[in-house]
Amino acid sequence: MRKVYVVGVGMTSIGRHYKRSMRDLFAEATLQAIDDAKGEKPQALVVGNMLSSSMGEQDSLGALLADSAGLRGIPAFKVEAACGSGGAAFFAAYNMVASGMFDVVLVAGVEKMTEHITATVTRALAQAADAEYELFYGASFTGLNALLMRYYMEKYRVSREEMAAWPVLMHENASQNPFAQLRFKITVEQVLNAMVVADPITLLDSSPMGDGAAAVMIASEEVARKLTDTPVRVAGVGLATDSVDLSTRLELDDLAAARLAAEKAYRMAGVEAGDIDVVEVHDAFTITGLLSLEALGLAGRGEAAKLVAEGRFRPGDRPEVNLSGGLKARGHPVGATGVYQIAEIAMQLRGDFPGVKASNPEVGLAENIGGHGATISVVVLRR
Amino acid sequence: MRKVYVVGVGMTSIGRHYKRSMRDLFAEATLQAIDDAKGEKPQALVVGNMLSSSMGEQDSLGALLADSAGLRGIPAFKVEAACGSGGAAFFAAYNMVASGMFDVVLVAGVEKMTEHITATVTRALAQAADAEYELFYGASFTGLNALLMRYYMEKYRVSREEMAAWPVLMHENASQNPFAQLRFKITVEQVLNAMVVADPITLLDSSPMGDGAAAVMIASEEVARKLTDTPVRVAGVGLATDSVDLSTRLELDDLAAARLAAEKAYRMAGVEAGDIDVVEVHDAFTITGLLSLEALGLAGRGEAAKLVAEGRFRPGDRPEVNLSGGLKARGHPVGATGVYQIAEIAMQLRGDFPGVKASNPEVGLAENIGGHGATISVVVLRR
Repeated sequence: MRKVYVVGVGMTSIGRHYKRSMRDLFAEATLQAIDDAKGEKPQALVVGNMLSSSMGEQDSLGALLADSAGLRGIPAFKVEAACGSGGAAFFAAYNMVASGMFDVVLVAGVEKMTEHITATVTRALAQAADAEYELFYGASFTGLNALLMRYYMEKYRVSREEMAAWPVLMHENASQNPFAQLRFKITVEQVLNAMVVADPITLLDSSPMGDGAAAVMIASEEVARKLTDTPVRVAGVGLATDSVDLSTRLELDDLAAARLAAEKAYRMAGVEAGDIDVVEVHDAFTITGLLSLEALGLAGRGEAAKLVAEGRFRPGDRPEVNLSGGLKARGHPVGATGVYQIAEIAMQLRGDFPGVKASNPEVGLAENIGGHGATISVVVLRR
Repeated sequence: MRKVYVVGVGMTSIGRHYKRSMRDLFAEATLQAIDDAKGEKPQALVVGNMLSSSMGEQDSLGALLADSAGLRGIPAFKVEAACGSGGAAFFAAYNMVASGMFDVVLVAGVEKMTEHITATVTRALAQAADAEYELFYGASFTGLNALLMRYYMEKYRVSREEMAAWPVLMHENASQNPFAQLRFKITVEQVLNAMVVADPITLLDSSPMGDGAAAVMIASEEVARKLTDTPVRVAGVGLATDSVDLSTRLELDDLAAARLAAEKAYRMAGVEAGDIDVVEVHDAFTITGLLSLEALGLAGRGEAAKLVAEGRFRPGDRPEVNLSGGLKARGHPVGATGVYQIAEIAMQLRGDFPGVKASNPEVGLAENIGGHGATISVVVLRR
């Protein structure tokens, strides 16, 4: 396999971009990434998106978005793996450079969520679950995550207060990130007293709905040397799956796909969990972030919540976790999230992330989840 | 790039599989393909599908389908490029073997269309067009193709009778294909007298709605030698895009993306259009098949319809075209179609296609279109 490098990144702020189309958001992030790569145009495009087909009446996003940014004609297609679409798109694009077919490929994640009413979005997001075995029975995506959270709290004797430490840390980190959707700090009390969405999940355990686009340009070694003075090596990539429905999982509180994907990515990169300096994990809900840390080997089983409550994983600790603010507070434009994470980790390794900066990191990791752990990608980046 | 081979194929019959789920159809095609590859299990899966998100309430197809065929855990994701999803999925999978990351990858196309009413399917198919510049104005996908057909007939002075030769040939070929949806012969008169769907397109110019799944296993050279005595080389692959909306095309009757994709695939395979012995082109409508032959260099501009009416492209001619019966009569389970085509061409080159057999072909080609030519893939296979 050829070596692959990140040579350019771009992103829009996340929020309610009511007056801006998906094309517009995509073009902003993409033109930034192209600029960042000294103006080099990509030879191919892979788009990560979840909701455009189900909610936006638009398929064919690959061709549509390529054209919108002046890239008409290039090979382009969309990858969908629910909220894990961005990371899966990166995985496909990685192989297109590693194979030698292309020297420069653009991965872009884009999502418009806020122009629909919440009920519509909730219904569309539930398509990440199993339509026949979960959705049919009226289970919402939040409801299924509430079940996971309750199970974890009971099994490991974790208090509601301890669980609340996660969103508090996320909002603190996001308050410094100019691209974040929720840039205000919150307290444990606010988390506990917030509206209950699906018991025990409150509004402040949940990632917000937002619009946004992120873009990452990747290139072969030879081209990377020309396009940037701060290339970031894609040292390892892993993608794995699990059952979509929770009912047939071997262990409810084990994100098996994250473990499998991390094993592959670690082996490929020649690193272990202990080598990771900075990480962005997929905390669509508080429970998702905690289970991710455990599956990645960054915390023992059942220990993540208590460690966060004790003050671990903050800026200055090792690893530093979700300095962007995570899905909880940076925001979660679902199909774009995985690309935001990779762009953020690349910027941390280059030293130019505009929010809370990691402490001179060498190795970073981005973990992106589709469904309740059905499709999980892990990307290890190195300075 | 590593060399890539087709080592196994499988497909279901196309039709109204009312009692069978998407998982069931997928598993049938996949288990056939695995059997065909001496029982070898794939290391990764790429799914081609268009309508499951918009019409079937189900995202996360990669993980869902992998699990349904006993492949839980493997890397898997869905690729969407409207009706060109199958070919685009093959393109992604090709790179995953060519890169060296995987030795055996499964590409599967799957679609369930017939459990919804026609209006619902027509609406969902229209998402292949531009939502803001075409769909918003009420243009159906058939209506936009009718515009193309009328333009072609006027520009090149082609009669309605000449255009009708295409579907007549397709039904004749399909009558021998046990997997085909429409296995009856038709006459030019029947085409002309059939119900008008969108003038000048009649019902018999249009591909039917159907359910089906097709699977292709691809492998590296070393593994291919072990798994089959009749490996088929993937000699060239090309993918290209164009504007999604017809209004900004440079020339309405030029499938520019097919030209670009074919140029790449021909160059990579070291062949020219004249070397192609057998081809499956994407004839969602009569006009689409004719424009495809021209863009691939198999007929001059404006000549394809007249050549078909004169009896060219039949079994025994060179190239032999759509021996399966094409989308018109084999059927068009949209996101699966591109995978059917590649499986059919592979079987023609191996000599075991169960319908009309090509005359000792050396080089075959499959062309798959998303939208009215927005995303087009071309795959050249060699014996």
